[in-house]
Amino acid sequence: MAPSVDPFSDFYCVIPAGGIGSRLWPLSRADAPKFLHDLTGSGQTLLRDTWDRLVPLSGADRVMVVTGRAHRAAVEEQLPDLGDSNVVLESEPKDSTAAIGLAAAILVRREPGVIVGSFAADHVIRDGRAFRRSVSEGVAAARAGYIATIGITPTEPAMGFGYIQCGDAIAIAGAPHAVGVAAFVEKPDLASAERYVGDGNHLWNGGMFIARADVLLKQIGESDPDLLAGLNELADAWDTPRRGAVVDHVWPNLTKIAIDYTVAEPAAAAGLLVVIPGDFDWDDVGDFASIAKLHSGGRKSDLAILGENARVLADASTGVVISQSGRLISLIGVSDIVVVDTPDALLVTTTANAQRVKAVVDALKLSGRTDVL
Amino acid sequence: MAPSVDPFSDFYCVIPAGGIGSRLWPLSRADAPKFLHDLTGSGQTLLRDTWDRLVPLSGADRVMVVTGRAHRAAVEEQLPDLGDSNVVLESEPKDSTAAIGLAAAILVRREPGVIVGSFAADHVIRDGRAFRRSVSEGVAAARAGYIATIGITPTEPAMGFGYIQCGDAIAIAGAPHAVGVAAFVEKPDLASAERYVGDGNHLWNGGMFIARADVLLKQIGESDPDLLAGLNELADAWDTPRRGAVVDHVWPNLTKIAIDYTVAEPAAAAGLLVVIPGDFDWDDVGDFASIAKLHSGGRKSDLAILGENARVLADASTGVVISQSGRLISLIGVSDIVVVDTPDALLVTTTANAQRVKAVVDALKLSGRTDVL
Repeated sequence: MAPSVDPFSDFYCVIPAGGIGSRLWPLSRADAPKFLHDLTGSGQTLLRDTWDRLVPLSGADRVMVVTGRAHRAAVEEQLPDLGDSNVVLESEPKDSTAAIGLAAAILVRREPGVIVGSFAADHVIRDGRAFRRSVSEGVAAARAGYIATIGITPTEPAMGFGYIQCGDAIAIAGAPHAVGVAAFVEKPDLASAERYVGDGNHLWNGGMFIARADVLLKQIGESDPDLLAGLNELADAWDTPRRGAVVDHVWPNLTKIAIDYTVAEPAAAAGLLVVIPGDFDWDDVGDFASIAKLHSGGRKSDLAILGENARVLADASTGVVISQSGRLISLIGVSDIVVVDTPDALLVTTTANAQRVKAVVDALKLSGRTDVL
Repeated sequence: MAPSVDPFSDFYCVIPAGGIGSRLWPLSRADAPKFLHDLTGSGQTLLRDTWDRLVPLSGADRVMVVTGRAHRAAVEEQLPDLGDSNVVLESEPKDSTAAIGLAAAILVRREPGVIVGSFAADHVIRDGRAFRRSVSEGVAAARAGYIATIGITPTEPAMGFGYIQCGDAIAIAGAPHAVGVAAFVEKPDLASAERYVGDGNHLWNGGMFIARADVLLKQIGESDPDLLAGLNELADAWDTPRRGAVVDHVWPNLTKIAIDYTVAEPAAAAGLLVVIPGDFDWDDVGDFASIAKLHSGGRKSDLAILGENARVLADASTGVVISQSGRLISLIGVSDIVVVDTPDALLVTTTANAQRVKAVVDALKLSGRTDVL
């Protein structure tokens, strides 16, 4: 019998905590992004839920958070065990390739051979054990030189998620469920989504990536050599007194691009990407319909109420109410309603219109009303 | 040719300004009743609109307002030309018989033979000329000893109003359109309302009464001798130093009853009541659906926005928004919605549910949450 090895011994978690969550306005704001809210009723923020899910895998001293300077205090308050050297502050948002790539470049210098796993700060996963099993397979695949992602077995024809079309099985020690990736599919229409759920060959794209840091960086370099050069310049200076000067010089010029385009799609095309099917609950809590669903357990007859000290008086109403103002909120005869009540802005819409909230945010930006964004 | 006589020479207007307007919560409150709001977009309160409609009939020195002590300052601010002797303050609400009856009892002592007309402080009538014509006929009928009411020719099968079933024509000099009253009908169902509009024999009950003060008081006395005795005791003391003591003693024991039951129905049964059909617009602005209708001109595609400094961003939404909080209000894809946004309470419902708002107020009362009432 072979000696048992900790499957996560060379594993490091990275939490990019950057997105505001525009579809959750006016709850999510530039100064109160989605990951700093409790959207599940767990009693703690999504960021803290994420931390609690990852620490059992890598240990608290092996979780790195990449976030904006403005959120440093809030992040440190949420994660008191987060070490100073595990906080990477962005001077301005540069999307996920820069965030995850910089973390990988810093970590590989500290620990050659390190495997990094990137997990969004604002997704919901409740089944920590099943999650751990999938990540474990992803780490095994990464150790074998692959870039691994985790796809979630879809439970309904969701139109708000991207999908991964599975390819052939790939034999990897420790990753018995790994398969190749035939294609990434953007948010589909309902007919396509129903087909994807039915054919058993599509998974939700959870946006999780696990790879050896050097493999990840090589892939970024093949997609965008300048971006990789910038990340390397930053990482070389990161743990030195030159960090501030180099950040000021390099950061503004980093390409702003999602890791889907620099890593996931090209790696899939090159046969370097594998997907581990995950049989756990997952939600990116992308809009208020998602929040309503999370809280109602799928029952259409429910009214979900979020917010400390919420005072809601509802009659014959369903949907979701998020109360942040302390005011009394009264609903009468409104179905699938979304009411988000904050001190300076109020949103009233329906779950069916939840995806359109971003358009309001865009309109507010255009009209210069950034005081409420 | 007979000498022309001012048809309103012996006429005195009474404005009972008492009702809170529970169906307009949380806009209308105990400390901000319906008559103190601008619900028409005229730029002034309903009370002021009422004053402006009545002064051309009776003169500013012949309009009496009966209101609660708590509203004295607000009423006087709205009506700077209202004389001190024309303000009757109720120590507690005792419904319309006490309010109108006391005004009549006070006025008949000052001016025997006076004709009083009672007009709600919070109804909307825009066609002042047609209104004046109808009141003029009502005054003529009152002078002939009748109690007159004004019924409004219905323009739609409204279920929120009471109806008057007309009887036979009654010959009265100066009141060529006067007819008897066959019956009062409470708020009907839709089928009945449609029949009433179609048969040409029903009018909306506008709750306006015109009668010689002595005739009105006699009718009250026949319905409730104790109530009349109380009103007379109050009126005897009103213009004397004893007013305060008598109010303290008598007021708490006055019967709380609507004038419909003490005057209108028994007078109709006795053949003493006539109705003048009024061909003017009229609305009691009884609920938020009524406000939406007043502002949309009947167009279902409109979103009515009320409130100074309202900041509303609406996409594919219809109904009515009333903004009193100064917050940004965003609506997306909500139809026939009612949003009432005040600093301490928010209401979200639909125009179809507008009549149910009162139930919320009742529930709040029962649960002791009177801070928002």
